[in-house]
This record gives sequence, C-alpha cells and structure tokens, in this order.
Amino acid sequence: MQIDEQNPSPRVPAKIVFGARLRHAREGLGLSQEVLAEKAGLHRTYIGQVERGERNISVDSMERLADAVSLPLWDMLKPLSAA
Amino acid sequence: MQIDEQNPSPRVPAKIVFGARLRHAREGLGLSQEVLAEKAGLHRTYIGQVERGERNISVDSMERLADAVSLPLWDMLKPLSAA
Repeated sequence: MQIDEQNPSPRVPAKIVFGARLRHAREGLGLSQEVLAEKAGLHRTYIGQVERGERNISVDSMERLADAVSLPLWDMLKPLSAA
Repeated sequence: MQIDEQNPSPRVPAKIVFGARLRHAREGLGLSQEVLAEKAGLHRTYIGQVERGERNISVDSMERLADAVSLPLWDMLKPLSAA
C-alpha cells in the first residue's frame, strides 16, 4: 500500500477499483453477469471474479469489458473516491 | 477499432497507450529500461516489449510500472491526444 499525498488513506489496488467500477457500470446498465460475459466474449464466472478484484486481469480483457459497458478504460481505473 | 465521438480517428489500443506513456515517463525521469525494470521487479526485455505495446500486460504489472514512474495508472491510460 502507498499513501496518496492528497488523501492519506491506503491506496486501493487497481484490480479492486476496476472490479468495483465494472460491477457498478454493469448494474447501472441493468445487465446480468451472463449478458456482460457474452458481450465481452468472456466467461460469466470470470466476470464475477473480476468484479471482486480476484483476477490479475490483462489490459486487453479490461479494454473489452470497458467497451462492453461503454466506458473509457482509464475512467474505470480512477480512484473510487473520484467522480 | 472504435470511433470516439469527440475525435473521429480510430482508437489506439490501451496497451499501445500505456506503452507510449511508460516510455515517455521513463525517459522524462532519465531512467534506463534496466533501472526501471529493477525498480518494478520486472525484466528489461519485458519493459521494452511493454513500451512497444507488444504485451498483453496484467493490471498488477501495469500498477507496478506506474508506481515505478510515480504516475497514477489511470493517467497512463488516457488517450494520447489528451494531456
């Protein structure tokens, strides 16, 4: 963990941030994990693991998931405290 | 490739963006690939491949490299046309 000078709480790992933002975006679109998996060409169980931050996901897979929820990838990696 | 509504040129894949921003940051810090590799606990040849966008790098490795050049990971995935 590192300390952000603007915000002295421990930093959340990027895969946790991505997973949380993916779940939020998916639910906001009213999509099931099954439907998102199909859109992104990935497995439903994999989506669940990614949303829980359990997978060391690759940049290509992150990009496919970002596309599937129509968000820019960089936006999905912003700290959870940010908008 | 997708079309960005703000900028109708074909989108650059995230791994190309990350690689270009990594090289720019590394060179800006005056670091060799060897030194960056040591800081990030990765191999020098791997750094070269990542900088050329040749590797489907994982989120954990991207985060280690972003830390090694003292940039937020999300910032390193912003479109190259952005600041």
